[in-house]
Amino acid sequence: MKIGKQTLKLENTPKLLETSSSVGPKEADGPLGNYFDIKVNDIFFGEKTFEKAETKFLTTAINNLLQKVSLQNDKIDYIFSGDLLNQCIASAYSVRDLEIPFFGLYGACSTYVEGMILASILVNSGMGEKIIYSASSHFCSSERQFRMPLEHGNQRPPSAQYTVTGAGCGLITTSKIEKKAPFITYVTPGKIVDLGINDMANMGAAMAPAAVMTILTHLEDTGRKPEYYDAIITGDLGNEGSEILIDLCKKNGVDISKVHTDCGKEIFDTINDRDVNSGGSGCGCIASVFSGYFYQKMKEQKINKVLLVATGALMSPISINQGESIPSIAHAVAIENEVN
Amino acid sequence: MKIGKQTLKLENTPKLLETSSSVGPKEADGPLGNYFDIKVNDIFFGEKTFEKAETKFLTTAINNLLQKVSLQNDKIDYIFSGDLLNQCIASAYSVRDLEIPFFGLYGACSTYVEGMILASILVNSGMGEKIIYSASSHFCSSERQFRMPLEHGNQRPPSAQYTVTGAGCGLITTSKIEKKAPFITYVTPGKIVDLGINDMANMGAAMAPAAVMTILTHLEDTGRKPEYYDAIITGDLGNEGSEILIDLCKKNGVDISKVHTDCGKEIFDTINDRDVNSGGSGCGCIASVFSGYFYQKMKEQKINKVLLVATGALMSPISINQGESIPSIAHAVAIENEVN
Repeated sequence: MKIGKQTLKLENTPKLLETSSSVGPKEADGPLGNYFDIKVNDIFFGEKTFEKAETKFLTTAINNLLQKVSLQNDKIDYIFSGDLLNQCIASAYSVRDLEIPFFGLYGACSTYVEGMILASILVNSGMGEKIIYSASSHFCSSERQFRMPLEHGNQRPPSAQYTVTGAGCGLITTSKIEKKAPFITYVTPGKIVDLGINDMANMGAAMAPAAVMTILTHLEDTGRKPEYYDAIITGDLGNEGSEILIDLCKKNGVDISKVHTDCGKEIFDTINDRDVNSGGSGCGCIASVFSGYFYQKMKEQKINKVLLVATGALMSPISINQGESIPSIAHAVAIENEVN
Repeated sequence: MKIGKQTLKLENTPKLLETSSSVGPKEADGPLGNYFDIKVNDIFFGEKTFEKAETKFLTTAINNLLQKVSLQNDKIDYIFSGDLLNQCIASAYSVRDLEIPFFGLYGACSTYVEGMILASILVNSGMGEKIIYSASSHFCSSERQFRMPLEHGNQRPPSAQYTVTGAGCGLITTSKIEKKAPFITYVTPGKIVDLGINDMANMGAAMAPAAVMTILTHLEDTGRKPEYYDAIITGDLGNEGSEILIDLCKKNGVDISKVHTDCGKEIFDTINDRDVNSGGSGCGCIASVFSGYFYQKMKEQKINKVLLVATGALMSPISINQGESIPSIAHAVAIENEVN
């Protein structure tokens, strides 16, 4: 049921039954290393190319999810998946062997929550009972596709972010399933926002306004205050974008500083590790950090009410070279241990 | 409600209230020229780059749709859109100014029906009352991204297809709206099929097996015979792929030859126009041909029951260069003037 401007209340409260995550060496060595399901020391994951490695990170995360819930792939109704690679090949080649009806998504780094929203809507409306959503990214495949050949060894400005090597996925099921798990209560799909930023080394600044718009709309639509949530978790704004987010929210009379956290800031040690500059980014950032870390915290009831907000920068190197700015989007989903 | 293996019956029968199409000069000069809403003589559409031109074809089609139904963009609940360009920039930049909550899709040439399916499911379940889906492609932006620089003037084999310059979109609404329009009755989302073809100049052959699987599954799930439909319309298999489709269906005991037609074969004169080889392709092919031609035929009740099947080849030039084959998918939707 639609409430307010653009939020949907999911009356049948689908469950996020289980999640799964896989990450590369740098992420495994970071502050959240203990929380990921699968940690791989080899950035190539035994493959010959970075693209095939990314595919394997995603495949491994999905297969691990199926194992965790003891389900064969033929029990899954649909899978939603997307990634950053041209033509989303990590998703296509991962899903190829699963024989699950597939909806391909492109939402840049917002894909993880875009998939979660669509999976939840389908389950809520009885169109499926078990639906997987997933997303991935890889530092090396992204770097050479969006920026420079790795061999170039280019320096990056402090506002730049470091693409996470990893994947994450989750299984949305009907609330009838008895196992205790968090519920998806509300979803707020986002609109595109573009304030004219065209610096591909400052994605946080480009994406923050989209996050502001979606968070404010969600709070207004649901009548909730920021403090209602134990955590408002953004995907990959990094240090720079997170500051802008909090500032812009304050200017709109909403203080989210006490509950805000960002997966891009959490996954790496942005103070001591100069490599990562402003923090993590990529579809795999929120995918691995939420699936690994925050979902675990929800299961332990350390946090019980979460607003998960994934931001995406919808440009390409070609559009930027042609003088365009960066259109951004943010999708939000409310995940809660108890339903009122 | 799920019926059979992977088909959903849309009990509330959403309506395809209106469609809109825009095409470039070659398509306007083709056999279906009279049916397209917007015909543009300039392949650049007044823009400086092919990518911006593609964006404008899509924007123009969407704005024309809004005009046709006399709706402002703020009355639209969601828009689903996708295209072939890296990071789906035609869709992102088109949707940017619309301020409609946006779900980005990547299904290659299956995107038009993928969007139609998701829009229909959301409307069917009461999650929205007016949802747009759209897709586009452009010969020049595709050619240089997937194949060769245009200046190279390369020759293409007879099995190759010619990417359509154009866009198409539609508006799905609740059946409560009184205006007469076709209903979306069933949807069959597809699984990925890959029989090992790796020739990027023979997409028809790569995609035909996916179309076979989805069509056979749809007929089995619904208990319908091919003759139930006035037309089983595939997206862009072209001459080569259409022959394979009909052959493979026959081998499975199903004869679709009397009702089958293909947008890639219809949009160009594949006999006299040697340029187009096996026929049209690209997201814009089924998008413009269905939105323009077949939807008009349904309104005129020349055809009343249609199974629309969009196929997509989910590879990228990188995956093919790395030795991979072409994973393909086909999504189907049943569109009918009367509901039983």
